Amino acid sequence: MGPVAPSGDDPPFRQIAIAGLGLIGGSIALAVKETSPSVRITGVDRQAVVAHALGSGAIDRGAETIQGIGEADLVILAAPVRQNVLLLRDLARLSVSGLITDVGGTKRDIVSAASQLPLHASFIGGHPIGGAERGGFGFARPDLFKGRPWIFTPDSNVPVDALARLSAFVRRLGAWPSTMDADRHDQMMAFLSHLPQLTASALMEVIGRAVAADGLRLAGRGLVDTTRLASSPSNVWKDIATTNADAIGQALDALIARLGELRADLRSGAIVESVLDDAGRWRAELMKGRETP
Amino acid sequence: MGPVAPSGDDPPFRQIAIAGLGLIGGSIALAVKETSPSVRITGVDRQAVVAHALGSGAIDRGAETIQGIGEADLVILAAPVRQNVLLLRDLARLSVSGLITDVGGTKRDIVSAASQLPLHASFIGGHPIGGAERGGFGFARPDLFKGRPWIFTPDSNVPVDALARLSAFVRRLGAWPSTMDADRHDQMMAFLSHLPQLTASALMEVIGRAVAADGLRLAGRGLVDTTRLASSPSNVWKDIATTNADAIGQALDALIARLGELRADLRSGAIVESVLDDAGRWRAELMKGRETP
Repeated sequence: MGPVAPSGDDPPFRQIAIAGLGLIGGSIALAVKETSPSVRITGVDRQAVVAHALGSGAIDRGAETIQGIGEADLVILAAPVRQNVLLLRDLARLSVSGLITDVGGTKRDIVSAASQLPLHASFIGGHPIGGAERGGFGFARPDLFKGRPWIFTPDSNVPVDALARLSAFVRRLGAWPSTMDADRHDQMMAFLSHLPQLTASALMEVIGRAVAADGLRLAGRGLVDTTRLASSPSNVWKDIATTNADAIGQALDALIARLGELRADLRSGAIVESVLDDAGRWRAELMKGRETP
Repeated sequence: MGPVAPSGDDPPFRQIAIAGLGLIGGSIALAVKETSPSVRITGVDRQAVVAHALGSGAIDRGAETIQGIGEADLVILAAPVRQNVLLLRDLARLSVSGLITDVGGTKRDIVSAASQLPLHASFIGGHPIGGAERGGFGFARPDLFKGRPWIFTPDSNVPVDALARLSAFVRRLGAWPSTMDADRHDQMMAFLSHLPQLTASALMEVIGRAVAADGLRLAGRGLVDTTRLASSPSNVWKDIATTNADAIGQALDALIARLGELRADLRSGAIVESVLDDAGRWRAELMKGRETP
């Protein structure tokens, strides 16, 4: 017989509900099943997605609406951002007793919505910095969060104990929890995540239109890498754009200005050279401590 | 005893000289050594690079200037584009007798320079669509061209036989040779290669400046993919920018305009949604027939 696990190794939640079984929600379900098989998971999504998730053993019970989540000591909102805000209002009407978190890519809107609801003390905004090339349950995987940051944006009236349990929960999935102000989160992510997404998509669209399918056959690995994000689901990103428009606008302005400077100096190439030199240093900084790609 | 190889399997060139042992020149040397070990290779570069290449068996002989290439039935110019043009003028003065090609990312300048030299009938512009994350001989690898296009831009006065031999040469390295007009090549590559490079670099620089080293630790896989090209050598790209400024300018204008439209509509998100939908379709088109990344 092996040693008895200390009580600190018990799963911090026994029954969880996940609303939205896309890439993130589905990966959370798979990761929980892998690391804490005793935890019961209810998944909420369209019937076909629920059937897929039940069939693959990612969830124990399915529901098609948030009203069907039943008992849960943790509810995770994993739909697009604006839908999560609506789901949060539904949860307030249902008077759920458990802790609630979300996994949306912007945090100000949902944190602000939560502050006006009776459940404000049970909500902690969250954002796993995972990501994969394609969205949807079909691309979900249990290791999506391994070694990746998971940012929480707790309001001041959230009990310290609740944040500790949530942090323990994501640590079991392999993530590194940290906390940040919702404003600062949205500012940072406008640059780190939202700007690269919109740029990769605009780049892919502009190039596709210019060279068409025949031309794309002559593309090298560089274009394949640079436009990997272009497969991301548009509904998720529409919500991110609308809920972080001011910060994304500033990030886009900075990039557009820099591209304009490059463009004006192509014949001399001096700005091209200095931008590439600077970018090479930032790229090296970005890759510090990451495994070789 | 195995069957005697038919004469068509003999290497099309016996002695080759490669001027510039960076990622591309170095990878050609390694690929030739792997596929045609009997071929003699002279490499031209700075002393330290030549020593590295000699030490790793990529070349048989080293020289520090183009004057030292000796006999060669194929000379490959693999320095940055504008340096290749200067090397081509040197070769004209040396009255080399072999075939000459280059591997630069733009073709109009060198093809036009060649047309004014006595060697014009022995020069065929070339462009292997290989590429890797980092430049320099240290990152060279023999499989860089496997399954990748290699475009030639032959002038009308180039003997058909010369093009056939060059095509056979790159086919032995695993590449798929094809031909294209130099103007069309530069137009296409402005979108397929030069625009993604400049965009990835500008993006990395703008983000690095905005969030600094601490912020970069919170970046997800998306940023890592999107900025992979940002490690490219600035001297190579300065030359590409200056020798394809008109076409790159048009490509940059198209991207800047699209980013401006996205930016103006962030609060509605309708353009974000349509750009992501279109981009997703082009991305799927780009990936057709490629191995999963």
